[in-house]
Amino acid sequence: MGSDRFLIKIREDRAKLGEFTTPHGIIKTPVFMNVATVGAIKGAVSFDDLEDIDTQVVLANTYHLHVRTGDALIKEMGGIRSFTSWKGPVLTDSGGFQVFSLKALRKINDEGVHFRSHIDGHRIFMGPEESIKIQSNLGSTIAMAFDECPSSKASREYVAESVGRTERWLLRCMNEMKRLNSLPDTVNNQQLLFGINQGAVYDDIRIKNAEFMADLELDGSAIGGLAVGESHEEMYHVLDVTIPHLRADRPVYLMGVGTPDNIVEAVYRGVDFFDCVYPSRNARHGQLYTHNGKLNLKNAVYAKDQRPIEEGCGCPACKRYSRAYIRHLLKANEMLGLRLCVTHNLYFYNHLMEEIRDALQNGDFGGFRRRFLDQYLSNGGVI
Amino acid sequence: MGSDRFLIKIREDRAKLGEFTTPHGIIKTPVFMNVATVGAIKGAVSFDDLEDIDTQVVLANTYHLHVRTGDALIKEMGGIRSFTSWKGPVLTDSGGFQVFSLKALRKINDEGVHFRSHIDGHRIFMGPEESIKIQSNLGSTIAMAFDECPSSKASREYVAESVGRTERWLLRCMNEMKRLNSLPDTVNNQQLLFGINQGAVYDDIRIKNAEFMADLELDGSAIGGLAVGESHEEMYHVLDVTIPHLRADRPVYLMGVGTPDNIVEAVYRGVDFFDCVYPSRNARHGQLYTHNGKLNLKNAVYAKDQRPIEEGCGCPACKRYSRAYIRHLLKANEMLGLRLCVTHNLYFYNHLMEEIRDALQNGDFGGFRRRFLDQYLSNGGVI
Repeated sequence: MGSDRFLIKIREDRAKLGEFTTPHGIIKTPVFMNVATVGAIKGAVSFDDLEDIDTQVVLANTYHLHVRTGDALIKEMGGIRSFTSWKGPVLTDSGGFQVFSLKALRKINDEGVHFRSHIDGHRIFMGPEESIKIQSNLGSTIAMAFDECPSSKASREYVAESVGRTERWLLRCMNEMKRLNSLPDTVNNQQLLFGINQGAVYDDIRIKNAEFMADLELDGSAIGGLAVGESHEEMYHVLDVTIPHLRADRPVYLMGVGTPDNIVEAVYRGVDFFDCVYPSRNARHGQLYTHNGKLNLKNAVYAKDQRPIEEGCGCPACKRYSRAYIRHLLKANEMLGLRLCVTHNLYFYNHLMEEIRDALQNGDFGGFRRRFLDQYLSNGGVI
Repeated sequence: MGSDRFLIKIREDRAKLGEFTTPHGIIKTPVFMNVATVGAIKGAVSFDDLEDIDTQVVLANTYHLHVRTGDALIKEMGGIRSFTSWKGPVLTDSGGFQVFSLKALRKINDEGVHFRSHIDGHRIFMGPEESIKIQSNLGSTIAMAFDECPSSKASREYVAESVGRTERWLLRCMNEMKRLNSLPDTVNNQQLLFGINQGAVYDDIRIKNAEFMADLELDGSAIGGLAVGESHEEMYHVLDVTIPHLRADRPVYLMGVGTPDNIVEAVYRGVDFFDCVYPSRNARHGQLYTHNGKLNLKNAVYAKDQRPIEEGCGCPACKRYSRAYIRHLLKANEMLGLRLCVTHNLYFYNHLMEEIRDALQNGDFGGFRRRFLDQYLSNGGVI
């Protein structure tokens, strides 16, 4: 496992251009995964739209699909890919991050987590086996191990205890996936599993956990527990310290990160997979990404601006609509405004990855990184 | 005017197949106009989507565009077509219907109406000249005369007085449009004007008003004040009584109507133009149109239904997504669900008009009408 699935075509220092082969297609890395929480992108962006903007991978949320509609029904419908009509690879998270966010409602022990549904308050128990069972029912391409994500402010003692539990859970996840992948009625018998490195900002805990994961038969290494309150410098430090201890023949997935400059900096440090809600969440507030920084379309200065969001951008929003019109839609709370903004931002993120891959292909990622960051951050990242 | 613009190609009893030539393209009639209140279809349906489903005409609301963003700004942006990027014909209503719906806020006299904005409460006055000025700023293809729409329950005395005022207003609308169309900086110097027939359910008032309009230089005849509480039979009666007194060489526009069976019955009685919010409003409640009647996708019976909304339907929603998936989106309040439902319903309405035009072309509208109504109403219109 690992080495034959992930083909590293070009290296430039720690950055890599690769191809990750899955049962549902080859993923060109570095890659951005587009968050489709309940099996749909926020802002009414359709799967036809996603195909139009050259999206490779969709990420769906295990917790949300479990508590509403339910993974059993989705299994009956042939799994999340058949249910949603998305033909490419799908990664499901473990549900852990959502469950641990329901702070008032949860009780953790070594078995797993007791909590209440945010929809109707009913009691749910989720441990490693339950999470993997749900992800197996969803039939995603890549499942994520069930982990605890401790706060970046948690004490060293708590983090050490938590990572120990996460390691025991990882072994149980692997056993359960092996069992489910061997059953005849499993949606995707070749489901892949990524482990998740934790350890908050404690270098030695991160490294010890990375070494633990390196010895296990996993398909990829995720880095969790970042972008949860620590500074960008702390995050980059964790990447610098941890990635050399992760398996070199497996892709590295930095969970929930981040801004365009975070992504470029993380690729530079060896990250291959990304996901983030920023493109859709910021679109809701009229914040649009451009190569010159972030633009707030709600500002009055754009009321009569006939230019597209970003000149030269090839996204469906920029090819047809002006800043003035989209701003008008946002001010009128018209859903089309949100859709156009989300489409632009997702296009920006997916095409940023393409620019990164092109730069790696041309042996000039170092130059690209300098030029991109100079331009993107020239106005403090805000235009 | 009128006769050379509206080419009637085929007549079958009172139903007609026609072509209405406008400065922004030829409209094949009978036609359904798609309601884009603030210059966008509800449910995040884009103008690319509208083109994909063979939409001919978009309708925008004068009142809404006046109170938010403003017609002055839209004029600066080159008018509503340039602003929204919709290349085909646009009809604007007069704003009267919305203004008269703000019951608590209005005061009517012969000059016009005083009312308050529903956005910020500021005082606005709108009379015939103001309405036409706004529509001229929007630069729509077809402007509507500013009329009063009395309740279908109003007394004969009130309706007679109201229609007298609407007739005086119509003359003022015509004068103002003539003046504005001759100015050099007008967005669309060839803006067309439709008069609006009123008279509630009083045959003689309707007829007298129709005869008044027939003598004026107008581009089309609208019938207003229907679908506001009267029965379908009363509505059909008004059409039967009124249409023979409208100008035969001008298209007839039945405002705000209606259900698919209303539309077929109204074409049968001589109507050429339609608009209605049902396709988008009902989509919001999960009510989808099919040739077998209306389907409520929120019903539990569709939870595992892998069929499209309507089998054989060529709309983008039916070509890719199942009832089960769209129902899941609606239950999760995911915007994509609404978008797919609105897309299907608008496709249904626009293609119903195409089926009607095909039947007229083939000389079998009578047969089409019987078969359509039999099938559509066979389950009481609900499946």
